[in-house]
Amino acid sequence: MRHPDRYFDAEPAVRSIARQLYQAVKDLPLICPHGHVDPSILAEDVPFPDPATLLVIPDHYLIRMLYSQGVSLESLGLQRVDGGPVESDPRKIWQRFAENFRLFRGTPSGCWIQDELEGVFGIEEALDGSTAMSVYDQICAKLAKPEFRPRALFERFKIEALSTTDAATDTLQYHRRIRESGWKGRVLPTFRPDAAVAILAPGWRAELEQLGRLTGSEITSYGGLVAALEHRRGFFRAMGAVSTDHGVVQPYTEELALAEVEAIFARALEGRASEEDARRFLAHMLIEFARMSADDGMVMQLHAGSFRNHNRKIFEGFGADKGCDIPVATEFTRNLYALLNKFGNHPKFRLVLFTLDESTYSRELAPLAGHYPAVRLGPPWWFHDSIQGMTRFRQRVTETAGIYNTAGFNDDTRAFLSIPARHDLNRRVDSNFLAGLVARHILSMDEAAAMSVDLAYNLARETYGLA
Amino acid sequence: MRHPDRYFDAEPAVRSIARQLYQAVKDLPLICPHGHVDPSILAEDVPFPDPATLLVIPDHYLIRMLYSQGVSLESLGLQRVDGGPVESDPRKIWQRFAENFRLFRGTPSGCWIQDELEGVFGIEEALDGSTAMSVYDQICAKLAKPEFRPRALFERFKIEALSTTDAATDTLQYHRRIRESGWKGRVLPTFRPDAAVAILAPGWRAELEQLGRLTGSEITSYGGLVAALEHRRGFFRAMGAVSTDHGVVQPYTEELALAEVEAIFARALEGRASEEDARRFLAHMLIEFARMSADDGMVMQLHAGSFRNHNRKIFEGFGADKGCDIPVATEFTRNLYALLNKFGNHPKFRLVLFTLDESTYSRELAPLAGHYPAVRLGPPWWFHDSIQGMTRFRQRVTETAGIYNTAGFNDDTRAFLSIPARHDLNRRVDSNFLAGLVARHILSMDEAAAMSVDLAYNLARETYGLA
Amino acid sequence: MRHPDRYFDAEPAVRSIARQLYQAVKDLPLICPHGHVDPSILAEDVPFPDPATLLVIPDHYLIRMLYSQGVSLESLGLQRVDGGPVESDPRKIWQRFAENFRLFRGTPSGCWIQDELEGVFGIEEALDGSTAMSVYDQICAKLAKPEFRPRALFERFKIEALSTTDAATDTLQYHRRIRESGWKGRVLPTFRPDAAVAILAPGWRAELEQLGRLTGSEITSYGGLVAALEHRRGFFRAMGAVSTDHGVVQPYTEELALAEVEAIFARALEGRASEEDARRFLAHMLIEFARMSADDGMVMQLHAGSFRNHNRKIFEGFGADKGCDIPVATEFTRNLYALLNKFGNHPKFRLVLFTLDESTYSRELAPLAGHYPAVRLGPPWWFHDSIQGMTRFRQRVTETAGIYNTAGFNDDTRAFLSIPARHDLNRRVDSNFLAGLVARHILSMDEAAAMSVDLAYNLARETYGLA
Repeated sequence: MRHPDRYFDAEPAVRSIARQLYQAVKDLPLICPHGHVDPSILAEDVPFPDPATLLVIPDHYLIRMLYSQGVSLESLGLQRVDGGPVESDPRKIWQRFAENFRLFRGTPSGCWIQDELEGVFGIEEALDGSTAMSVYDQICAKLAKPEFRPRALFERFKIEALSTTDAATDTLQYHRRIRESGWKGRVLPTFRPDAAVAILAPGWRAELEQLGRLTGSEITSYGGLVAALEHRRGFFRAMGAVSTDHGVVQPYTEELALAEVEAIFARALEGRASEEDARRFLAHMLIEFARMSADDGMVMQLHAGSFRNHNRKIFEGFGADKGCDIPVATEFTRNLYALLNKFGNHPKFRLVLFTLDESTYSRELAPLAGHYPAVRLGPPWWFHDSIQGMTRFRQRVTETAGIYNTAGFNDDTRAFLSIPARHDLNRRVDSNFLAGLVARHILSMDEAAAMSVDLAYNLARETYGLA
Repeated sequence: MRHPDRYFDAEPAVRSIARQLYQAVKDLPLICPHGHVDPSILAEDVPFPDPATLLVIPDHYLIRMLYSQGVSLESLGLQRVDGGPVESDPRKIWQRFAENFRLFRGTPSGCWIQDELEGVFGIEEALDGSTAMSVYDQICAKLAKPEFRPRALFERFKIEALSTTDAATDTLQYHRRIRESGWKGRVLPTFRPDAAVAILAPGWRAELEQLGRLTGSEITSYGGLVAALEHRRGFFRAMGAVSTDHGVVQPYTEELALAEVEAIFARALEGRASEEDARRFLAHMLIEFARMSADDGMVMQLHAGSFRNHNRKIFEGFGADKGCDIPVATEFTRNLYALLNKFGNHPKFRLVLFTLDESTYSRELAPLAGHYPAVRLGPPWWFHDSIQGMTRFRQRVTETAGIYNTAGFNDDTRAFLSIPARHDLNRRVDSNFLAGLVARHILSMDEAAAMSVDLAYNLARETYGLA
Repeated sequence: MRHPDRYFDAEPAVRSIARQLYQAVKDLPLICPHGHVDPSILAEDVPFPDPATLLVIPDHYLIRMLYSQGVSLESLGLQRVDGGPVESDPRKIWQRFAENFRLFRGTPSGCWIQDELEGVFGIEEALDGSTAMSVYDQICAKLAKPEFRPRALFERFKIEALSTTDAATDTLQYHRRIRESGWKGRVLPTFRPDAAVAILAPGWRAELEQLGRLTGSEITSYGGLVAALEHRRGFFRAMGAVSTDHGVVQPYTEELALAEVEAIFARALEGRASEEDARRFLAHMLIEFARMSADDGMVMQLHAGSFRNHNRKIFEGFGADKGCDIPVATEFTRNLYALLNKFGNHPKFRLVLFTLDESTYSRELAPLAGHYPAVRLGPPWWFHDSIQGMTRFRQRVTETAGIYNTAGFNDDTRAFLSIPARHDLNRRVDSNFLAGLVARHILSMDEAAAMSVDLAYNLARETYGLA
């Protein structure tokens, strides 16, 4: 059985306070304002597939680690772009995963999987090669039951709100079906228009055409693009969206004169835009998106610093999101200067910043969040969404920005079944962080108890206007 | 009452050693070799004003945090540049601050304020909206007493030496009045000539003219500038100064040929200098200042890495130093190459380096300080002047540079009343750091006890030649 | 006496687990796959010289710290390039070192020296000015005994394999003598061809000529260089080498077209190569070395980020490796893109990465190692080879890369007698790290016990193919 005090400090005084703080927040509803769950799961509410298809194949945290130790993606059942042969027996895939489960020792994936097996499926066996098939069968047996259907789990998990991530051109058909089904689960789209502003990407023209179709007007100018994006934001808001999301390598922002941005757009339409055009266009659009957020109140999320598809062989063989995105050093102070000077003091604008470069926590992000009214710091992202990662975040950010300029937790996951495990781990780590401050007499127990509820629930709810 | 073991580790063995180390240093005199206290306070020795004017309005750590959560600077009583209306009732300002005091939970400001209220004013009530007026009245009552006059507090605080920070053109009239008053408090000026070498700044010509007036010769050449700066250094030294201070974004140094620096200076006088001119002129002047320090023995302090006045709206509305300076990544190894190759081995030269980029602690600063005889590392600055920040500094620097290449503590504050709280917090954190090494048998108790006194007192005294 | 629980956490539960884990690994043989021991020591097996010549003069960790506090290198007996007078009395040098031993408080050098004095020489006295001569005499007495000869110590230390570092043009005469002596100690060369590819370095032409002589063909083209390097690799492999080593400031890689690299090589031969030529040639050669490693199976080690000989006065006066190499910020994600896309998925290629920039641990290195099959992370290098440094490495790397993408420990030392102390310190720190995870119920005791053996022994052995 997973230890009830897991992830707390060993020191008894800290542990005892952490346990007390955690007890008061562990059963609070889950606020999930940023993630990648496929809404069709909740629209269709059919039973989940087998354990390998459900838990291994789509989890890029797992497959990248297995791959790093010589396990091929084919042998894990990942579909090849060229349709070449891959392992199709889910039992074999699960067995392979279990036999290599030692690779995840000391990693968040290891924690999540074990917590999930016990928390969701009631499985207490340790996962390894010898228990693989037994665990597999137990999961299958559970998944066959009605109370393991997606909506039943959504309710059992006490998810108060779940935001998905959706392209600007997404029809939101599944969100619509959820709404029309009469089921009360709150599943919200998030407006992610990256493809509409990536003027050098191969799919940009197609995205523009689709955007034109959906908004009933061909997009032939920058002004047309802005109008179409505003139109879609209106649709997303009508469907419940409270936020947008933007992924960039560097969070560079620059306001271009209208003539200049129109000229870049025209060059892009003609296929003549340069790298520098693309960079400046995106820099300008970030400010334009901030302007729209200040207008319509949608929270703007900015995820910076991931060099996508670093391993071309994997990208070409299997597509994106296969664990070969690698972070790069990221600069916020100078890059966000233009955007923050334009909208950082705006009372209706809110910007949530995410980073993969921890050296920016104390150097740039906490000082920015500790000054600009618009800025909130998103929780540790991706490689840092872990016990040590979350601890470092609080240690480096709190003294400058406090906790009230942070955005609470989000699980950022496509693995629906791991949601409770991720929130639980975060609640344990934040409780433990606060317990350390209480034990050192930096906080009183009353202060820590209030902050603990804020971190576990209120901050995410308030940041995204989900109350 | 503040807990006597506050800020020490919870682990009983570490705590007990920390307490023992701390007891031996807590009452040592305070060495304050770098800070921003207004010397007129000690020259005039009149009672301090009300709590809001004394503690809130001038403290950019406090106002930036309040501002980040939507409290306007006007409502906090900060004077607008345009003379527009602002809150003028100090009780309302204090009430507003107290109601938002929860924002400072877990921050050094929160610690300092609480320590100061109890340590200086004997107030044990927790500060919040309900106690605000009671606390206000207690402070007022204390401030009215003679033993709360500035000089009385200076003595009660056991300040052995206090350095201020002063422009090269400062007349040092208050330092002179202190000396002439017969009062024995040691208050020293620090020579900060930034304005004299910022050739692109709007006020540069005026600064040059003032410098000329004070040194009795119009400055029309680079040579004239150097002579005038040397003249002023002589005056500062005669007034007790032991150090200079220099603020730069990047610590870039480069030695220019005389003809080149004269040409840049000439262009600057004509208002034709470029950004690159300004950058190289400053780079050259840093080496020239090092040369002067090697000549006259004044310790050279270099503060690098702050992007000043990032929020133009606040700067234009309220002026500088309102909490909107944001750090940037900083490079020392290559940037200081020219300066250190010229003077880093000089037996009379001492350079104290400060950073806002903690990633340089172990990567660049500790290796530089652990090799060059001239280099000492200043304590954690600004955003890092905190429990976790100080701990990270010692953890990342000590193994490479030891403690004897660090410059001890300084409070770097303009908040005179917070000085004891800041030194006390530092002494607690350093005691706790050493206690951790004793508990892990890395140091003996005897070694730690000696190091503790060095960190709390001797290193600052020796680094700045204040013995 | 050194405390048996030294370097473990003070918290009793963690300490007790750490002790248990450590007991099981402390006597495992030592795998030393990267270091700088002079093989002539083991070839000649004559008694070691006096303590100063043995322990102080060649240790750049010690001399740089002493120098940083004003102790001249002349007074420490370092030979001047110009043959100028230096201290020649080893007792005086040792006395000077001992009198300043307090500088090493809290540093790894302090730990190593003390552990070595007790562990190798059985000296329990604390080293300071008063005990210096007594300690000196005890060391001398021991060194005179046969059981303190190099080979005897090699065996007593239980060194299973020791790799040296050798230029591509090294004749490996001492490795040959060791082999031919019939002694069974495993001492392996490592192929370090930096000098052969540094086309702007003053010694490049001489290196090329020597390479030509050794391979029996004048090198007049890039193709000739490649052939000669492959020839030498063959020789090194025949002499037991399992790895290569490459030192660069930035790990920039770029594949050049053959015509381009031939053109650069031709310019270099004519002395007309530019800085950019040198940078790109090296970038290309790193990929070429990866290709050779994929062919011949030698592990490729890459040490990036050291700005060598920062202090010209010391370099010109005393030569290289005198403690004035200073790290710079280092970029891996973009720089290694070309190399990893070419060979990162190759089943026979292994690349071990070392850094002096800790900010890259979690940002770049762990994600790269946690994805690419070829990549392993080398242990904390140089300034980070310390209690806190090793701890930070595990804390920042493990959650993303696990432990199985790390390369185990290596001592990277030229100080033969410090080898056991360095491995012991590492085993203690890794045991303590794992104990913390057990105490927080992140790992079971069984898992930690297995990982502990992996970290102390198996990973280094397996990474370098030394099994």
